[in-house]
Amino acid sequence: MINVKAIAYVQSPFKEKFGIPRQAGLTPSVPAILIFEKEYSDLDAFRELEGFSHIWVTFYFHKFNYDHFQSVVRPPRLGGNEKIGVFATRSPNRPNALGLSKVKIQKIEKSGNKVHLHVFGLDALDGTPILDIRPFIEEDSEHSASFGWTKRQIKNECYDVSFSQDALLEIEASNIPNLKNQIIEVLRLDPSPQYKETPSESFGMNFYHFNIKWIKTAHNIHVTQLEIR
Amino acid sequence: MINVKAIAYVQSPFKEKFGIPRQAGLTPSVPAILIFEKEYSDLDAFRELEGFSHIWVTFYFHKFNYDHFQSVVRPPRLGGNEKIGVFATRSPNRPNALGLSKVKIQKIEKSGNKVHLHVFGLDALDGTPILDIRPFIEEDSEHSASFGWTKRQIKNECYDVSFSQDALLEIEASNIPNLKNQIIEVLRLDPSPQYKETPSESFGMNFYHFNIKWIKTAHNIHVTQLEIR
Repeated sequence: MINVKAIAYVQSPFKEKFGIPRQAGLTPSVPAILIFEKEYSDLDAFRELEGFSHIWVTFYFHKFNYDHFQSVVRPPRLGGNEKIGVFATRSPNRPNALGLSKVKIQKIEKSGNKVHLHVFGLDALDGTPILDIRPFIEEDSEHSASFGWTKRQIKNECYDVSFSQDALLEIEASNIPNLKNQIIEVLRLDPSPQYKETPSESFGMNFYHFNIKWIKTAHNIHVTQLEIR
Repeated sequence: MINVKAIAYVQSPFKEKFGIPRQAGLTPSVPAILIFEKEYSDLDAFRELEGFSHIWVTFYFHKFNYDHFQSVVRPPRLGGNEKIGVFATRSPNRPNALGLSKVKIQKIEKSGNKVHLHVFGLDALDGTPILDIRPFIEEDSEHSASFGWTKRQIKNECYDVSFSQDALLEIEASNIPNLKNQIIEVLRLDPSPQYKETPSESFGMNFYHFNIKWIKTAHNIHVTQLEIR
């Protein structure tokens, strides 16, 4: 057994697993804050980090209940029907529930006795423990790589997202910067289960202090309401 | 505390820390094998992994002795004199001694009851515990990123590497595929301490079952001998 520890915790608008995009970067308007433990909140430890636009965040899927090793998973981007080896995916269902996401740095600041690292595009639940951050360097890109099954992605990822008049008023009243775009980015990916094919169905997800309600039809996702939780 | 476990162990020609390149991919001819624990050696768990050219390997710096949090480190590629915040580097000297390397897949096969994943370019010591592997996907590249201090790299990274007649005969007798290129890739990066500036000095490093001996001058690294350990 190897022991690791949380160096920071995530403050994120994603308050439940449902609705979190299947990878980082798909929701570039969605902000998150990595709040570092006091022990690591020396600004010197972040010296020159602001010269990088992106970082890798290694985190722990703390709400993931792992009971036994499953060798195959059904990736959502293949529609949830095809089985792929777990090591050929980034599913949380793996021997060590470690996540790895590339996110964009917004700013670094000290607030009280804790360093707050503000980022965009993190696909992690509120309260997620962070194990490491490291800069994204030039050599991390790979221009002649091959990407296997991810290239036969079958899921339609371009839902149109529309809003009711009520929902628009609730967004405006919220005073959360860019909330409408954030919701569009999350919902256009269609977080609902992929194996279902019902003509029209209602869903809801917790996001910030809202339960966002929507109706999904064949090509459209219509946000009806932002209910305060 | 969060517990993680080794899912595999590395078999690598790097038998000591000295000489390991400062990041993956700099020694593309150097092979390594990730030998998976029996529990995870179901070939189904690797199904479709061979469609990817590269994977990310998350490992544990098991020989790194961490005693207290140092907020700054002196990266070798800045010549070892400049202090950078530890979170703006990939130094092993960090709160959780986690490494992350992108490596090239050579092949996947089952040998006895263990899966052997053969890779190229891994910058890890023999015996390193592996915590996770995951595919390198298209979205991992980032074309408009900025790379901070890594762009003011001052270290000359292009040493010429030459060999004595004895060394060439020892390489030939070794029967290790591509050993000469492997040695060139390791030594051209000049693994010797950067803060020293002695006109000509002798070094040795353990690589496979050899202690490789060389003499370093201003622009050249001359391999004199491959001593069997």
